[in-house]
Amino acid sequence: MLSIELKNRRDKIRRLMLQKEIDALLIATNVNMIYANGSMVSGYLYIPLNAPSYLFVKRPNTVVGENVRSIRKPEQLPELIAQCGLPAPTRLALEGDELTYREYQRLAACFPNVEVLPCATALVREARSIKTPFEVELFRRSGKLHADAYAQIPQVYRAGMTDRELSIEVERLMRQTGCLGIFRVFGQSMEIFMGSLLAGDNAATPSPYDFALGGKGLDPSIPGGANGSLLKEGETFMVDMGGNYFGYMSDMSRVYAIGSLSDEAYKAHQVCIDIQNEIADHVKPGVVCEELYQMALERVRQAGFADYFMGVEQKARFIGHGVGLEINESPVIASRIATKLEPGMVFALEPKIVLPGVGPLGIENTWVVTPDGVEKMTNAPEEIVLL
Amino acid sequence: MLSIELKNRRDKIRRLMLQKEIDALLIATNVNMIYANGSMVSGYLYIPLNAPSYLFVKRPNTVVGENVRSIRKPEQLPELIAQCGLPAPTRLALEGDELTYREYQRLAACFPNVEVLPCATALVREARSIKTPFEVELFRRSGKLHADAYAQIPQVYRAGMTDRELSIEVERLMRQTGCLGIFRVFGQSMEIFMGSLLAGDNAATPSPYDFALGGKGLDPSIPGGANGSLLKEGETFMVDMGGNYFGYMSDMSRVYAIGSLSDEAYKAHQVCIDIQNEIADHVKPGVVCEELYQMALERVRQAGFADYFMGVEQKARFIGHGVGLEINESPVIASRIATKLEPGMVFALEPKIVLPGVGPLGIENTWVVTPDGVEKMTNAPEEIVLL
Repeated sequence: MLSIELKNRRDKIRRLMLQKEIDALLIATNVNMIYANGSMVSGYLYIPLNAPSYLFVKRPNTVVGENVRSIRKPEQLPELIAQCGLPAPTRLALEGDELTYREYQRLAACFPNVEVLPCATALVREARSIKTPFEVELFRRSGKLHADAYAQIPQVYRAGMTDRELSIEVERLMRQTGCLGIFRVFGQSMEIFMGSLLAGDNAATPSPYDFALGGKGLDPSIPGGANGSLLKEGETFMVDMGGNYFGYMSDMSRVYAIGSLSDEAYKAHQVCIDIQNEIADHVKPGVVCEELYQMALERVRQAGFADYFMGVEQKARFIGHGVGLEINESPVIASRIATKLEPGMVFALEPKIVLPGVGPLGIENTWVVTPDGVEKMTNAPEEIVLL
Repeated sequence: MLSIELKNRRDKIRRLMLQKEIDALLIATNVNMIYANGSMVSGYLYIPLNAPSYLFVKRPNTVVGENVRSIRKPEQLPELIAQCGLPAPTRLALEGDELTYREYQRLAACFPNVEVLPCATALVREARSIKTPFEVELFRRSGKLHADAYAQIPQVYRAGMTDRELSIEVERLMRQTGCLGIFRVFGQSMEIFMGSLLAGDNAATPSPYDFALGGKGLDPSIPGGANGSLLKEGETFMVDMGGNYFGYMSDMSRVYAIGSLSDEAYKAHQVCIDIQNEIADHVKPGVVCEELYQMALERVRQAGFADYFMGVEQKARFIGHGVGLEINESPVIASRIATKLEPGMVFALEPKIVLPGVGPLGIENTWVVTPDGVEKMTNAPEEIVLL
């Protein structure tokens, strides 16, 4: 990665450090390391406010560079920091929402006379929420490949398939177009394989995970997504895979139907498309997230589909979410989220309805906020694809 | 899951609680929840030493039962515990190596007059390290399916493929035989997609992850595994996928060669098989892990392959690891590990050599310690498969 890009990212982190009167920040977890170092290494990236950053590497042992030192254990950090001629920290931020309790305690104990604060997660996530032009371009490329994979779904569908069988073929299409497979999500209680394929009533099955829709899953150890049900005439299924092609998770959902559907189903689908388009027309820098959420709720109420919006028995309480190196970044488009949109914010917008006896309907695309509006980065037909 | 099985698991946890004078343990993370509750839910499983366990559920809202209550936030725990007629805890164990710092602090703050200890991770992992007969049977079934998938690899290989292309086909075979796909690993710095396919010299590329072998990977955001290199005549590749069929990660590696190999390559492979078999002959309850590690090192030194054992430039410092709901459980077979093997312990044993200019050689199988020895659960031919 270009060093200017890394400098941009670290400058963004440093501006937030300055605001919060933090004079050093230590990155020790994978996703923040990828962000602020450009590649994943095991070790510590030390970012002082007014001095160069240094990378202290445990593994791999092949990483070298001017501002790189080898480290075996965190207890060496204060000495290494001094040896590199860096000022000792006075207010040091650690990743309090990512490090485990014991890792955090161990790191904090290395700096006995320092004020240690757990705010590095929130701070770096704030920096990450505004993508650089370089990152936005990766999303554009990801969106194209993601759409290429979905375009081939009709060719791998065969009558009589189960949701599991088709999911395997869709996963393969994703991988063949270059998806790295790994699905990164913030929060240790969240997990999923590559994404989901939800068919018929299974799309309404509540799950423990806080994704837009749930699904029963194939085993109690991972209760989300496909459950092995037959893809049936008159029902729909929704493909919602994570498009991690370059580290960045593009997010995109499309609906497919086996044979034709009732007028109500088409109407429900169109309501979601209308919500998406209305929100897209409304988005520009300065718009508040919760406003977009209320617009969606109002619209779906008017259309008479409120009972089926974002789930049935258990509903997701958001209609969109920031995406980046993880699938769930800032901002969240939900009630009581006062975040104002800014240029460079990238989010997935996913108004979805689950009609009992039919299945999931609606749409999801990944968007970037521009200086005067919004740009769609997952461009593909949005109507229901008939199989 | 049978309630008797859950009772067995919780009894095992309670015996360790008694030893450590802990009168209550709170499970809040996914893998321990699957273990002690039989299925993944979002919420808290409260295990008092001398009273029934209660499940406090956030999501899904459909979980009900005699000892189940709904909860919105952790601050409700003390009141709910009292309402259920349970004794208030005096020494409460939390999952200090799994909860994030801030989650832990928030939970601990809910119990202001209680001695809160971070030892629940170590305690539950100790309980998990001795599998029940029910769990061992799931491993046996998993091992069979895992072997079925690998048996089909020669049929999906085509001359001229890259490691990435073949990996996609192997992932599909795994999924078609029932693999759930999700790869669970302990420690927030560890991650991988479904496993790895390492070809030629890429198998010696050091990675930040602490797996047996590394690989460059396809993107700096996930530097491990296949790197897009062509599968070439005279070289080997090794398939090492995680066999998560029922929540339990069976682990298995096999080596394939494009055309024939040098005598040295066959010799290196045989050394690994010999190490495996020698260790298997030696394993029984009471044997110390580090003894097995030393046996392997001694043997590989005698054979003249020490420089290439478990990597070249960067070497893994273990030859085996416990497996279970996560790929890296207790016991670790490494130096300075004084753990004594016990019946029911399940581990992967993976002596591997990477020969420069040839690629990875060696073997990996999943074993369970029996009352008088060891049983292999991933049964498949172990010689190099010629393609």
